[in-house]
Amino acid sequence: MDVKQIGLIGAGGMGGMLALLFAELGVGVHFFDPSDTNSKKVLANAKTLKFEDKIHRQPDHAALCKALPPPRAFLFSLPHGKTIDDTVEALLPHLDPGDLMMDASNEHYTSTEKRQGYLSKRDIHYVGMGVSGGYQSARSGPSISPGGTRRALDLAYPILEKICARDVNGKPCLTKLGPGGAGHYVKMVHNGIEQGMMGALCEVWGIMRWGLDMSLPEIGDVFEKWNNEGPLKDNFLVKIGADICRTKDDTGEFVIDTVMDKVVQDVDEEEGTGVWTVEEAARLHIPIPTIANAHMLRLGSAHATRRTAAAKAFGKTGTTYDKVSDGAWGGDKKTAVTDLARATDAAFLLSFIQGFHLLAAASDDFKWDLKFGEILQLWRGGCIIRSDAMNDLFADVFKESDLDRHNLLANKKIASELEDINTGLRRVVTRSMEADLPVPTLSGSLEYYKYMTSTLLPTRFMEAQLDYFGMHMYDKVSEGLGEAKTGKYHYEWKPARGPREIRELEHRGK
Amino acid sequence: MDVKQIGLIGAGGMGGMLALLFAELGVGVHFFDPSDTNSKKVLANAKTLKFEDKIHRQPDHAALCKALPPPRAFLFSLPHGKTIDDTVEALLPHLDPGDLMMDASNEHYTSTEKRQGYLSKRDIHYVGMGVSGGYQSARSGPSISPGGTRRALDLAYPILEKICARDVNGKPCLTKLGPGGAGHYVKMVHNGIEQGMMGALCEVWGIMRWGLDMSLPEIGDVFEKWNNEGPLKDNFLVKIGADICRTKDDTGEFVIDTVMDKVVQDVDEEEGTGVWTVEEAARLHIPIPTIANAHMLRLGSAHATRRTAAAKAFGKTGTTYDKVSDGAWGGDKKTAVTDLARATDAAFLLSFIQGFHLLAAASDDFKWDLKFGEILQLWRGGCIIRSDAMNDLFADVFKESDLDRHNLLANKKIASELEDINTGLRRVVTRSMEADLPVPTLSGSLEYYKYMTSTLLPTRFMEAQLDYFGMHMYDKVSEGLGEAKTGKYHYEWKPARGPREIRELEHRGK
Repeated sequence: MDVKQIGLIGAGGMGGMLALLFAELGVGVHFFDPSDTNSKKVLANAKTLKFEDKIHRQPDHAALCKALPPPRAFLFSLPHGKTIDDTVEALLPHLDPGDLMMDASNEHYTSTEKRQGYLSKRDIHYVGMGVSGGYQSARSGPSISPGGTRRALDLAYPILEKICARDVNGKPCLTKLGPGGAGHYVKMVHNGIEQGMMGALCEVWGIMRWGLDMSLPEIGDVFEKWNNEGPLKDNFLVKIGADICRTKDDTGEFVIDTVMDKVVQDVDEEEGTGVWTVEEAARLHIPIPTIANAHMLRLGSAHATRRTAAAKAFGKTGTTYDKVSDGAWGGDKKTAVTDLARATDAAFLLSFIQGFHLLAAASDDFKWDLKFGEILQLWRGGCIIRSDAMNDLFADVFKESDLDRHNLLANKKIASELEDINTGLRRVVTRSMEADLPVPTLSGSLEYYKYMTSTLLPTRFMEAQLDYFGMHMYDKVSEGLGEAKTGKYHYEWKPARGPREIRELEHRGK
Repeated sequence: MDVKQIGLIGAGGMGGMLALLFAELGVGVHFFDPSDTNSKKVLANAKTLKFEDKIHRQPDHAALCKALPPPRAFLFSLPHGKTIDDTVEALLPHLDPGDLMMDASNEHYTSTEKRQGYLSKRDIHYVGMGVSGGYQSARSGPSISPGGTRRALDLAYPILEKICARDVNGKPCLTKLGPGGAGHYVKMVHNGIEQGMMGALCEVWGIMRWGLDMSLPEIGDVFEKWNNEGPLKDNFLVKIGADICRTKDDTGEFVIDTVMDKVVQDVDEEEGTGVWTVEEAARLHIPIPTIANAHMLRLGSAHATRRTAAAKAFGKTGTTYDKVSDGAWGGDKKTAVTDLARATDAAFLLSFIQGFHLLAAASDDFKWDLKFGEILQLWRGGCIIRSDAMNDLFADVFKESDLDRHNLLANKKIASELEDINTGLRRVVTRSMEADLPVPTLSGSLEYYKYMTSTLLPTRFMEAQLDYFGMHMYDKVSEGLGEAKTGKYHYEWKPARGPREIRELEHRGK
């Protein structure tokens, strides 16, 4: 489809910027957003940028459909769930067979698949796609991961190719990902990886700020250096971290010093992707502690009133960091910062690894045949988890023919990259425990590494307990590693006795 | 309902023992199980115990229904999901209005609610209930948490009262929990708490075994002592832990030394409850890191072949513990064991607290009005998470009129019980990091305590990042704690620029 005009529904932060991007690239935009504020903002921006002739507000769904010649192409940027269902219903009476809907919202893949099934009966094409990179990328070119039928993807591709991000070689960060909800699934995992990375990075930031008593500009310089060379080279979150540490408001105060520590995007249901990643990993039995612990830190952080009430009950006065703000994390600062770089590298890698393990399981479960190399290409530009040096490593690894996609820690290149985990991540976590600084993401990452590479775990005792009371069966050490299946042996640790026998035994003093 | 006979479907580990218990208590049992092995085992046990006249095998569902006079009472002990659906359908043609089904399986609460809705149209009563305590308790009297309509619970209660466990005062560990799937939900959370406790306990066991180089009987003595007095008094898992450390097989070898460290009950779908607890906590935005990290440890442990391949890639030779099996955890053993007791106490308490937070959220979400005091009574006897000293503490806490059920860490009695967390749990985790022993559950618990009682978290940086790229908004420190809602402020850290402007800036070298 080579459309001259597009119908855009939802002109908020992301949608509004996508409207400007389409306009700049010569595609006319008819948009509908019930919010006057959103709509006026888009029109004002269009005026400033002299795009007025390209961007038109429509008063409702009917008018929007009327303004577009068939075959129509729509792009949604909406809150997930009911809003999208309502939008589909509102559009339907005004559509023709062959029209195309592209949902660029963060939507649950099952909802996308329901809509695809429903609309296929009307011969309406429906693409569920992740659009990553935040509002700046939506304006300049986002990373796009579309999923749907081959026909729908073929129709959508030329439209999306106009606006998508490109890597340093000009190759689009866009690929026809797979059928059904595959596009939204991959975006969900992208956001899960993002949560893991952001958890690790904020903990590292906290250690520098309060454990090493570094100034914000000093931390900004560290982040800049990390972003310029080494394993964190061209890493979006590290890069903007440098900006954040240096930004002052009109009064000359560092903006970050004014920001409350509440991350509410999950508890207020604005952002479903972190929640869904944890649910999906549980469903598919994939351990993702870097991501899950970062997610839970966000949940806990959201309720500042609860945390403060709990601090009071424990007799904590002032902030947690009062006692360490004199640099109690201690030692040589330069060594500490080197350790922190290694810890960040390790936690970021493990976040990616856990995300890829989840994608491997989902790809098998749904028979999606996801290509990891293509997914890496998507994440080369325009997206939040952009990590070019790390991407190079994984790109190499994913070319290996005998790779076990379910066990990336068994790959030698990855193991080699993580070989200094004991001097980096482990030292950082140990010292943070001593200094009482919170490191749930970093310690969860370290523990994951420990148990995923262990040949003997204390879960031997857990397995024995399950067999004791639950007759759950176990495998024997003498018979080798065995599969991850119900064991063959039960030991009768304690016989089951009825009430009468128990009374008799008690009577006889046993 | 005062039934003389019961129809039992599923005569495996739990069901077979329940059959014997009913028989011993004078209730006739007609059972159906397609497995000859299971059926013959029950009949053989019945013969040994001289219950032959009370226990009868039926060849199919129709015969089972025919053998019971209406109103009939059935008890299921089956694998969750399809097997139960199939059972309901197989029974239906042979039932009369007023018959009662009691599902004692570990079933997802939503499946239970679907069946309740479906069967209510036929006037068949359906109770979904947790039955806890493993097969020994199923033989002597389990803890039972039934949920359903008031009428269904009234019918089921007298039957269940015969077989349920009783606390030391003879009070039944049985209560009419609430409507719909409340019974199965509470059992799910019970099993979630169980996973958290088992994770912590196996890590503590591992530290004693490999970090302190203690012999199994020595560890058994420690567990016995913990179970006899103090905060872990009358704690089922600790108590059986002592047995496990002392049990030798026919050859004189300690049984636990023969057990593979693979915990497969989640990955093989045998046990859904741990998975569902993590999913539910994610859905309701409740951080449960003690439970979730223990769950993920189980998942990781299940794949011994993967762990071994990863160990090889990292050049690890032998077991993780080779280097610490000489007692490298170090220091005075007596002090270390005291620290471990405190750490176990703290992790167990936090597992309960996280479980109750999830129950509080679910109770609000479904308007179930769950009574925490009644739930504690359920857990007084017959169940796996029985922890009498801890139960006393919570029973006291739950009587407080101004309690915030969503924030138990703000309770002074609980804070007081956890006050030595820094000398116990924190020291144990720190030393385990140094000794490289895996402690995902313990460290996840410690981190939870740290961030849930913190008045200043590094998530300030995370919130700033989200606002930078996502325009997610934040609250300002100057305006106080504020609610867990979308913030009011956005700072334009970096303006959104279109491709043309970016090219121009690049051209001008900016």
